[in-house]
Amino acid sequence: MASVATLFLKPSFPSHPFPKTHKPHLSFNLKYPTPLLSNKEKWKNKKKQLRISCGLIEPDGGKLVELVVEEPLRDEKRREAMSVPLIKLSRIDLEWVHVISEGWASPLRGFMKEAEFLQTLHFNSLRLEDGSVVNMSLPIVLAIDDSQKQRIGGSSKVALVGSDEKPVAILSNIEIYKHNKEERIARTWGTTAPGLPYVEQAITNAGNWLIGGDLEVIEPIKYNDGLDQYRLSPAELRKEFQRRNADAVFAFQLRNPVHNGHALLMNDTRRRLLEMGYKNPVLLLHPLGGYTKADDVPLSWRMKQHEKVLEEGVLNPETTVVAIFPSPMHYAGPTEVQWHAKSRINAGANFYIVGRDPAGMSHPVEKRDLYDADHGKKVLSMAPGLERLNILPFRVAAYDKKQMKMDFFDPSRPQDFLFISGTKMRTLAKNRENPPDGFMCPGGWKILVEYYDSLALPKRNELREAVPA
Amino acid sequence: MASVATLFLKPSFPSHPFPKTHKPHLSFNLKYPTPLLSNKEKWKNKKKQLRISCGLIEPDGGKLVELVVEEPLRDEKRREAMSVPLIKLSRIDLEWVHVISEGWASPLRGFMKEAEFLQTLHFNSLRLEDGSVVNMSLPIVLAIDDSQKQRIGGSSKVALVGSDEKPVAILSNIEIYKHNKEERIARTWGTTAPGLPYVEQAITNAGNWLIGGDLEVIEPIKYNDGLDQYRLSPAELRKEFQRRNADAVFAFQLRNPVHNGHALLMNDTRRRLLEMGYKNPVLLLHPLGGYTKADDVPLSWRMKQHEKVLEEGVLNPETTVVAIFPSPMHYAGPTEVQWHAKSRINAGANFYIVGRDPAGMSHPVEKRDLYDADHGKKVLSMAPGLERLNILPFRVAAYDKKQMKMDFFDPSRPQDFLFISGTKMRTLAKNRENPPDGFMCPGGWKILVEYYDSLALPKRNELREAVPA
Repeated sequence: MASVATLFLKPSFPSHPFPKTHKPHLSFNLKYPTPLLSNKEKWKNKKKQLRISCGLIEPDGGKLVELVVEEPLRDEKRREAMSVPLIKLSRIDLEWVHVISEGWASPLRGFMKEAEFLQTLHFNSLRLEDGSVVNMSLPIVLAIDDSQKQRIGGSSKVALVGSDEKPVAILSNIEIYKHNKEERIARTWGTTAPGLPYVEQAITNAGNWLIGGDLEVIEPIKYNDGLDQYRLSPAELRKEFQRRNADAVFAFQLRNPVHNGHALLMNDTRRRLLEMGYKNPVLLLHPLGGYTKADDVPLSWRMKQHEKVLEEGVLNPETTVVAIFPSPMHYAGPTEVQWHAKSRINAGANFYIVGRDPAGMSHPVEKRDLYDADHGKKVLSMAPGLERLNILPFRVAAYDKKQMKMDFFDPSRPQDFLFISGTKMRTLAKNRENPPDGFMCPGGWKILVEYYDSLALPKRNELREAVPA
Repeated sequence: MASVATLFLKPSFPSHPFPKTHKPHLSFNLKYPTPLLSNKEKWKNKKKQLRISCGLIEPDGGKLVELVVEEPLRDEKRREAMSVPLIKLSRIDLEWVHVISEGWASPLRGFMKEAEFLQTLHFNSLRLEDGSVVNMSLPIVLAIDDSQKQRIGGSSKVALVGSDEKPVAILSNIEIYKHNKEERIARTWGTTAPGLPYVEQAITNAGNWLIGGDLEVIEPIKYNDGLDQYRLSPAELRKEFQRRNADAVFAFQLRNPVHNGHALLMNDTRRRLLEMGYKNPVLLLHPLGGYTKADDVPLSWRMKQHEKVLEEGVLNPETTVVAIFPSPMHYAGPTEVQWHAKSRINAGANFYIVGRDPAGMSHPVEKRDLYDADHGKKVLSMAPGLERLNILPFRVAAYDKKQMKMDFFDPSRPQDFLFISGTKMRTLAKNRENPPDGFMCPGGWKILVEYYDSLALPKRNELREAVPA
């Protein structure tokens, strides 16, 4: 998919108010309080000031962390792994090993020790030895229980093994410290309400200790699900952007099917970057590939849908790199969006598109959204360690019934716009109904309908199986 | 009390492992991960490197904020206040007006707007216009309800009035934004468990909106409780330190009676500062004077107790300034200790003593301490915006039965030490029992016993009054 190269034929979108903040690359000259919304005039002035950078943005900490052991040393590491205490990884743990091993979390070199954990919880950032600050908003930690702690005893190393008991990695210089789950959850999600998907999946039943240390991963993490070729590491993505002579890279994080409202944001960003003087801005279309909640569309179906979006010319394959971001999803709103942005710096992106309520969801107990829809972009624009990244906040897009296409919502004629929520979209696809023309490309919509059809079948099977034998 | 000047006669304490971290004044050269515990050797090396500073430490933002209107303009401001919508202040709101008006929260110039509120919740710090960062860990906010919001309407100013309806301050350039109480509580306390004292007192029943803006305070805040002379502003404290030719100021925050374990920390700090080459280190003994929970000893009794501690020579009045810190107490552990430290920078302190579990309390629901006892000093040593402050973490002090005095706990002979908790101390005082000799100076202990005696009487009265008429 990343190499598909048909031409982009769609007409350009009409003009509309653009991203309301823009910070020149490498500027640290921010306002107090941070100006969230500058006007169109300011944007124009910024364009004139903008220094066009030649190379890709530097990874956090100056050097991309890569922790996969070189081929000639792998057997030795495998033997070493068999001689130290073992910890079995859950699927989500493995996804974090993958994330750390490829440097998405640079300069982090392993699961967090307490000093990093505390800085993450309290400051959403880490201070480096040279006094500089990098963003780090999600605790990247490995939990163990009392019996595992006891088994580790005084060892300074442990081996991390997969579900098949094969060694995946070695964790050295380990530090074991208390896992205060309540405090971790409260400070990460801003709530402790029951029903947070990641919490229920990965924290509630996890051990009462965290183990940090330096990671060495024995070979590249593969999932053998037919999608590994899309799992490009930050180093591979940087190489691809250089191969394409990208002079700007703008990242779009998503965990949902792409509709034309998303495409509008991405295409409009490219148009503006060209206007600003960039010659070859490249889009990183970057679906999240790790853990997602049960009612999200699974990765394999989303990848098929994204493929159609490129095939049908909604996005231009010549200027788009599609790859999978291996991180699991927290649904932690303003805290998580910082992780989504920071990790893309490490992959070479210097522009980050942020929409309404990023990484948000409904409150698990109360009848409201968990986060204020604007907090994500506001927090992102203020976040320590993200000063180098150009944050591109967008207004909400909706279906314009008059123009029969997705467009930025125009508050002067609200009656013309239709908001199609994720729930509405899913209900339509489940019922094999069509959304209005221009909401999503037909091929992409067909994939969604197929997905919900496929769901119906196993459900009937489950029902049968539920009958006691 | 601040001017009492009897001589300090107590013998010096024996040597023991000292503060485990020490950062030279104005150094930004920190380690990653932040080195929490350097050894005695490192401390000795640091001493040699330390640059002795002549003037007092600069306030956050470079200039101390002072928001009390000059005398000739006060009548005009009072008239202005009567012409704009009114908001009635609670006692805690008034304490915050006091705090802001004297610059304890410099560079904050009023109740927080949303940009400051979000930075506080997510990053425990504010970024200034020049790109520098100051610490800010507690939201300093003013809540209003729907009807107040409606009454304010489109006005850009409101007047803040006291319980007597007299105008206290004007808030200009106001911004009203949502008060998400759950998120505020979770991110500030790391729990949403019911029973957090400040939450129950000031948040649970507060309005669903926050109002930020620029504060002008019509006249200095006074409480007319016989203690106003001890409420020295940061400007007054700085003047006092300069008058005393202090070349180092070390602050000790407390909300409890001073026992000899506390005194040990303070006297030992002074000895070490002298060893380091300071000629005149001055102690700021700085009891918190705002809201405290019901079972804490009230301010007036604590002040009497502190007076005895100085009279009886446990602390040296010649090198001690006693003053009241007007802030209310959050009991928010590692988050709050940053506020306690940051505000003392503004008052001129460049050394801050931190003990075990600062600003901590028992978990309101579970049978454990709410915070890890070491997290306070660890978080403090890593906190953005506090790099200029020398954090002096201390080991726990306990009663040494062999030496019959308070001393640093020696883990090689645990059987010799007695831990006297706050609860134990209160129970002894309530029962008119004496603690072991050397735990607290006799005069100080007598005050405590008197306080608990005084409590017994009104309780009987209450009981009588509770009988229905």
